[in-house]
Amino acid sequence: MPAPSTIHVLNGPSLNLLGTREPEVYGRATLADIERMLQAAASERGFGLVFKQTNSEGALIDMIQEAGKTGAGLILNAGAYTHTSLAVHDALRALAIPVVEVHLSNPFKREAVRHHSYVAPLALGVICGFGAKGYVMALDALAAHLKEKEKTR
Amino acid sequence: MPAPSTIHVLNGPSLNLLGTREPEVYGRATLADIERMLQAAASERGFGLVFKQTNSEGALIDMIQEAGKTGAGLILNAGAYTHTSLAVHDALRALAIPVVEVHLSNPFKREAVRHHSYVAPLALGVICGFGAKGYVMALDALAAHLKEKEKTR
Amino acid sequence: MPAPSTIHVLNGPSLNLLGTREPEVYGRATLADIERMLQAAASERGFGLVFKQTNSEGALIDMIQEAGKTGAGLILNAGAYTHTSLAVHDALRALAIPVVEVHLSNPFKREAVRHHSYVAPLALGVICGFGAKGYVMALDALAAHLKEKEKTR
Amino acid sequence: MPAPSTIHVLNGPSLNLLGTREPEVYGRATLADIERMLQAAASERGFGLVFKQTNSEGALIDMIQEAGKTGAGLILNAGAYTHTSLAVHDALRALAIPVVEVHLSNPFKREAVRHHSYVAPLALGVICGFGAKGYVMALDALAAHLKEKEKTR
Amino acid sequence: MPAPSTIHVLNGPSLNLLGTREPEVYGRATLADIERMLQAAASERGFGLVFKQTNSEGALIDMIQEAGKTGAGLILNAGAYTHTSLAVHDALRALAIPVVEVHLSNPFKREAVRHHSYVAPLALGVICGFGAKGYVMALDALAAHLKEKEKTR
Amino acid sequence: MPAPSTIHVLNGPSLNLLGTREPEVYGRATLADIERMLQAAASERGFGLVFKQTNSEGALIDMIQEAGKTGAGLILNAGAYTHTSLAVHDALRALAIPVVEVHLSNPFKREAVRHHSYVAPLALGVICGFGAKGYVMALDALAAHLKEKEKTR
Amino acid sequence: MPAPSTIHVLNGPSLNLLGTREPEVYGRATLADIERMLQAAASERGFGLVFKQTNSEGALIDMIQEAGKTGAGLILNAGAYTHTSLAVHDALRALAIPVVEVHLSNPFKREAVRHHSYVAPLALGVICGFGAKGYVMALDALAAHLKEKEKTR
Amino acid sequence: MPAPSTIHVLNGPSLNLLGTREPEVYGRATLADIERMLQAAASERGFGLVFKQTNSEGALIDMIQEAGKTGAGLILNAGAYTHTSLAVHDALRALAIPVVEVHLSNPFKREAVRHHSYVAPLALGVICGFGAKGYVMALDALAAHLKEKEKTR
Amino acid sequence: MPAPSTIHVLNGPSLNLLGTREPEVYGRATLADIERMLQAAASERGFGLVFKQTNSEGALIDMIQEAGKTGAGLILNAGAYTHTSLAVHDALRALAIPVVEVHLSNPFKREAVRHHSYVAPLALGVICGFGAKGYVMALDALAAHLKEKEKTR
Amino acid sequence: MPAPSTIHVLNGPSLNLLGTREPEVYGRATLADIERMLQAAASERGFGLVFKQTNSEGALIDMIQEAGKTGAGLILNAGAYTHTSLAVHDALRALAIPVVEVHLSNPFKREAVRHHSYVAPLALGVICGFGAKGYVMALDALAAHLKEKEKTR
Amino acid sequence: MPAPSTIHVLNGPSLNLLGTREPEVYGRATLADIERMLQAAASERGFGLVFKQTNSEGALIDMIQEAGKTGAGLILNAGAYTHTSLAVHDALRALAIPVVEVHLSNPFKREAVRHHSYVAPLALGVICGFGAKGYVMALDALAAHLKEKEKTR
Amino acid sequence: MPAPSTIHVLNGPSLNLLGTREPEVYGRATLADIERMLQAAASERGFGLVFKQTNSEGALIDMIQEAGKTGAGLILNAGAYTHTSLAVHDALRALAIPVVEVHLSNPFKREAVRHHSYVAPLALGVICGFGAKGYVMALDALAAHLKEKEKTR
Repeated sequence: MPAPSTIHVLNGPSLNLLGTREPEVYGRATLADIERMLQAAASERGFGLVFKQTNSEGALIDMIQEAGKTGAGLILNAGAYTHTSLAVHDALRALAIPVVEVHLSNPFKREAVRHHSYVAPLALGVICGFGAKGYVMALDALAAHLKEKEKTR
Repeated sequence: MPAPSTIHVLNGPSLNLLGTREPEVYGRATLADIERMLQAAASERGFGLVFKQTNSEGALIDMIQEAGKTGAGLILNAGAYTHTSLAVHDALRALAIPVVEVHLSNPFKREAVRHHSYVAPLALGVICGFGAKGYVMALDALAAHLKEKEKTR
Repeated sequence: MPAPSTIHVLNGPSLNLLGTREPEVYGRATLADIERMLQAAASERGFGLVFKQTNSEGALIDMIQEAGKTGAGLILNAGAYTHTSLAVHDALRALAIPVVEVHLSNPFKREAVRHHSYVAPLALGVICGFGAKGYVMALDALAAHLKEKEKTR
Repeated sequence: MPAPSTIHVLNGPSLNLLGTREPEVYGRATLADIERMLQAAASERGFGLVFKQTNSEGALIDMIQEAGKTGAGLILNAGAYTHTSLAVHDALRALAIPVVEVHLSNPFKREAVRHHSYVAPLALGVICGFGAKGYVMALDALAAHLKEKEKTR
Repeated sequence: MPAPSTIHVLNGPSLNLLGTREPEVYGRATLADIERMLQAAASERGFGLVFKQTNSEGALIDMIQEAGKTGAGLILNAGAYTHTSLAVHDALRALAIPVVEVHLSNPFKREAVRHHSYVAPLALGVICGFGAKGYVMALDALAAHLKEKEKTR
Repeated sequence: MPAPSTIHVLNGPSLNLLGTREPEVYGRATLADIERMLQAAASERGFGLVFKQTNSEGALIDMIQEAGKTGAGLILNAGAYTHTSLAVHDALRALAIPVVEVHLSNPFKREAVRHHSYVAPLALGVICGFGAKGYVMALDALAAHLKEKEKTR
Repeated sequence: MPAPSTIHVLNGPSLNLLGTREPEVYGRATLADIERMLQAAASERGFGLVFKQTNSEGALIDMIQEAGKTGAGLILNAGAYTHTSLAVHDALRALAIPVVEVHLSNPFKREAVRHHSYVAPLALGVICGFGAKGYVMALDALAAHLKEKEKTR
Repeated sequence: MPAPSTIHVLNGPSLNLLGTREPEVYGRATLADIERMLQAAASERGFGLVFKQTNSEGALIDMIQEAGKTGAGLILNAGAYTHTSLAVHDALRALAIPVVEVHLSNPFKREAVRHHSYVAPLALGVICGFGAKGYVMALDALAAHLKEKEKTR
Repeated sequence: MPAPSTIHVLNGPSLNLLGTREPEVYGRATLADIERMLQAAASERGFGLVFKQTNSEGALIDMIQEAGKTGAGLILNAGAYTHTSLAVHDALRALAIPVVEVHLSNPFKREAVRHHSYVAPLALGVICGFGAKGYVMALDALAAHLKEKEKTR
Repeated sequence: MPAPSTIHVLNGPSLNLLGTREPEVYGRATLADIERMLQAAASERGFGLVFKQTNSEGALIDMIQEAGKTGAGLILNAGAYTHTSLAVHDALRALAIPVVEVHLSNPFKREAVRHHSYVAPLALGVICGFGAKGYVMALDALAAHLKEKEKTR
Repeated sequence: MPAPSTIHVLNGPSLNLLGTREPEVYGRATLADIERMLQAAASERGFGLVFKQTNSEGALIDMIQEAGKTGAGLILNAGAYTHTSLAVHDALRALAIPVVEVHLSNPFKREAVRHHSYVAPLALGVICGFGAKGYVMALDALAAHLKEKEKTR
Repeated sequence: MPAPSTIHVLNGPSLNLLGTREPEVYGRATLADIERMLQAAASERGFGLVFKQTNSEGALIDMIQEAGKTGAGLILNAGAYTHTSLAVHDALRALAIPVVEVHLSNPFKREAVRHHSYVAPLALGVICGFGAKGYVMALDALAAHLKEKEKTR
């Protein structure tokens, strides 16, 4: 079981293909590369890391509930479910830990359906368009937020 | 295998958290409490009970198909999938047994997306806003409906 | 003047024709039959009953105001005004007693205009699709709610 | 009580002012003039006539129900309620006698809200734009329809 | 060349099939039957008659322009072009003679696209739902209108 | 019968509850208090006053027609009918006297349905958000307008 | 006159330019090439073939009516009229023979206006995106359908 | 056959009535006057001219295709088809020569349906509101464009 | 592991019930029958076949990714997910092999929500309305496409 | 620097032209006349007055911020920015002093874009349609409101 | 101060960058080049010229008011404000001199927000898509219009 | 003049009030505090900094153009203009340097009008919801991006 100071990073549908498809769009970093980057960054800041991917909306909700039980914060790139899943939205509503929404590319440069997010209204903040680096920015911001919260207790 | 006089009660995403989150909104009854209440009410009326929860749209459809094969009636609280799942709608279209839609809270007091139901047009009736008690009302109504149907055969 | 423990049941336009028109849709019970069923059920539970019907939006609002002055709870089947009357909505806003919305048939099986309810956002709960029996379910739920409220005072 | 061969002519809100306001738009005929024209035309064709006006949606529904009980056919100019009253629509659904919709002016020359009719989908036919004469055309068409129906019984 | 007292009756797409297709919907009268009925009715009232049908929007506009040059009034059943043709609308705008819009069935009982008419805002009046008889009603009304106009000159 | 220099003040549905419900929103003044304030203000300015309330759309239209016959000006707070009643709109169209629209609260702070007014396009002016005082402002403005009009005759 | 076992293939606006414009999009096959392919395929399956093209909506409706009189089945590529012509839709409604809708390219890859089809709701089936080959697929499917129907008579 | 340096000017529905109807809106110039003006202007600039009008969408597409085969440029006033014809749009897409869109009046001063143009997205430029003179402006601009293009070859 | 010349056929929610429910709508062929038909057709054309069904959106995406790794082409009947799943759309975007969309019935004859397809914009072509036979048509077309592509390498 | 008892009156774009353009619509009073009227009324009630006009959205925001720093209340006629400026809305959100919205004419008699106000949801009240006099009414109401607030401190 | 025969040419946001950014789209002419071209063309036709650019909506309105005071006509390229500024629209409404709207490129080839113009309904005419040359066409048309108006005085 | 390695930070309307209004929402940092934080962070990373605020859309565009001339990158918090200014959008289109969009709060938690951004489709990336810290995150990301770009030249 992860310690209370663990950050969960959850990735939605098709993100397992990262780095092998359309590298000119999404960059050459694979999801494993991102996991390694975040693992390093997390231990440097004194946090544990749980890093998962799933193509299933239901499994993603299971993982969000798990994060709520064992994690201190959540970084979520829900992929296409960002834009269509009221069920993910409800899972986030039931969550007591802070969430940061991340996207590799900038959804606002794409079709209208991607301009609405079911995650954003429940997120501490949103970071998009910075590729793999966006995950590290999210971890930085989330770690800082968690430390600050601890202080103010 | 459940007898033909079994009623299936299916619960959608995040309902497994019932009673532990926002009790002032959803009440203190857990899903296990509701299952116990329904078990008692069902045997009193001479029905068997199958009671399940899942966060997955696909698993919910599997369960609906199973209910169609082995159940006499279905009580469905599809949670967020109520409002977004055409696939659940299609699974219900293929169902020959009566369905009662239940919600703990009243979705009409919430955002517009929750005012549309993919379940309701295929349901015998809808009960919402009465908390855990709504499940028992649904079981009562469904049991009465099934008994009356039997008579008129 | 009815006692404080009276439940008001108000019926909107065209409900006076119940039982004589399209019995295959709305059942053979007339409004008088429903009144009798409810009268019995109410006295059994120790409540008085006021039961009225009107085709007029204004008269319905008068009756809602009257219920607010002399009743303990309201069961409302506002018929077509459910979907079009902001004035009924405002009358309900001004009401301090609990309201249960009832419909004989399931409006979600009908045209889009009937999917919106001006009553529901102000109702304790909604019951629809169970025919005349839905009124008794509503009375049961409302009576239980009123007794529970009394206890917690 | 009118004989079964009576035609009811019902007029909605503000039609009582006919002939005295904006005669260049609606003509100089008063509602009383129209009643006289129709009385003559009806007796000529062997029909009785009931002719009423009301500003109240509820009273209009009462009158429609009365027409259903004692009339053979209905000519309806529901005025503004044509465009907003689902309750009038429901009253017409419950009606077993044929309805002809009439308007003095042509609503399609006016604002968009007047392009939708809650009466038309339930009417045998619609006549608009011919002023007071439209009522006589409606009576002609309705009388012919009723006679033909009688033959084919 | 028709005399100035000629009434033009123009029929749009698919109306040439009248009487042979779906007679339970549109009746058994063919377009030729309607022409005969109108011919009789017109001569009785001292008017000539031009009666045409076309499946082509362009040809219908040609015929409308011709009616404007040689006719005293126009009865128009533009069929599907009623609902889609801005070009027919513009042809009617350019017309100095009165137009009566006729439909065999009641478009308000059909899909939403048929609830909008490009003809109606430019018509003296509209008659729909009375089958073949509606044409004669239109001719009656138009003839009366033309005679009255003559008097008031 | 009121003299021609009478101002009619008409109040729509639920306004009879003023002062007893949600005083923190609508203030503690009752409708009777407002009537007294206006009576005083009217006689001070040399006008008679007719002050009425109704929950019924039809009765409100009757009252508007009455005001048109016997009044010099109209102050109208149509409550919820402001936003839904095309029939009230038509009654105001038929009116030859000036109308001032008043609301106690500011409808623009509330739901979208209250942002549209069927009264405003026919009103001399609109005053909202000033509570009971808004009625006096309306009477002031209407009285001034009527006096000025008299002068310019 | 074609025999009853004739299949009509009708092509709408701009399809006469096929093969000469944007061959990288629509392929190098001309409409004459497609006609030859279909002629061969039809005689192989024992059917006659009528193959036409027109830029005119009215002429297309004439051809659809002609197909209804002398053909056993219809293959229709209505080009842009697919998306805008209610009149073509009505012509197809009046048709007693089966229709297969064909498009060379996939309209769902193009602008929103091309996502709606007035042909599809009346078609046996739809084939799009397979270029000239789609016509042969349509003929295959239609021929098989016609033979099967013959058997089941 | 026209020389390659011919400019085609095509006019859509009802434009043949120019100068005889509503001269205060469209001016007194007839289509023949405009043709003469353009003939003079074209020869002055060394271009041939083809000038046509049709009320038919199909014929307009035929003419556009003809212009594509034998013309160097196209000036198009498609009248009402500008706003409704996807088929004209497609005919223009298939065109290799430059198109200038012209309107006599300014469609943006008229109803919303006239604010969308199926021609404009495929046009070199648009000129509207300048009456008959707009055609000459279009010819000037098109001639200049064609000469410049020739130079840069 | 399937050879590179394998075609994957994936079926979405509720398609496992095929042949047992509403056979008059969807035919009597079961999914197993379709698989047999396709197996035969595939080997005849020298292709391997992978044939799967799932009720789960996530599992469907897993299968699409698997098809991308081991298949040469994909035939997809995504059932209700066709109309709601942006995640399936994204999985198809990431796919380098051609996709053919198939539906047993014609979605354009059904509710509006089924007129939009998230699959179609990424498909080589679409075939719908031909029942079980549509799968064989799709396999034919896909096999031909794959062979042609091989040649042009 | 104005004293705390100063009322700011700010006027948006084109209001500087008041009295010189369309006097039949906006009256003959110039902005300078209105300033004089308000100056008199303000001193009479013991308030200072700051009165400004600007055509610039940015400058208007500067002035609103200035009013927030040095004024006791704000009367705002933001002209066209009323309907389009979210930035003005945000400036008002940041304001701790009460705002009264004024319009010379009644925007509800004009195009739909003028029916929405970015000012109204943040205003104490709204006054429109009373011309220059509306400003004095606003000052009266605002002064009374400020005095009452002082008392209740 | 410019003479009454001066034409004002006003340019909105980002037009100062003309010629230096995306010359392949907007051409190589700078705003200074256009000013020179227009200066020459204006003096040739006997008109003075005022030529300005601003990025500010407010300053543009100031300039439009100035043009109204000292100019005989206005050529306006309001850039992005064309599509969003109701305030510019109102400034143009208050203008007594004729306005010609110009755009370098064709906005109908771009996003939907650019298809609506707040300038066009108030403009004599619109010219777009002809690059820098469009300004000279506008000046030509405006000069001709002004001379003609002078004659007809 | 700033060196090429200068980063511009531009702030839109009402941001000058930061820290003094609603500190519980926007935090206690003033805009001056943010400028100091960024100044320190920029010099640490070897960049110059230009930091400005304006309430004016026009001035903001001027500043964006200036950034394009003298800056290496732009951090933009356009406040309310983010959601309404097509002119800011166009100014960003004309920009050759990278832009990062920043918001203090998360606009997706607010009204619908704030869910659309005219800046985002032209931004490298978007950061929102992290308060003042978001600016430093933006500077970090922008500085890293600029350094990487330099390397790859």
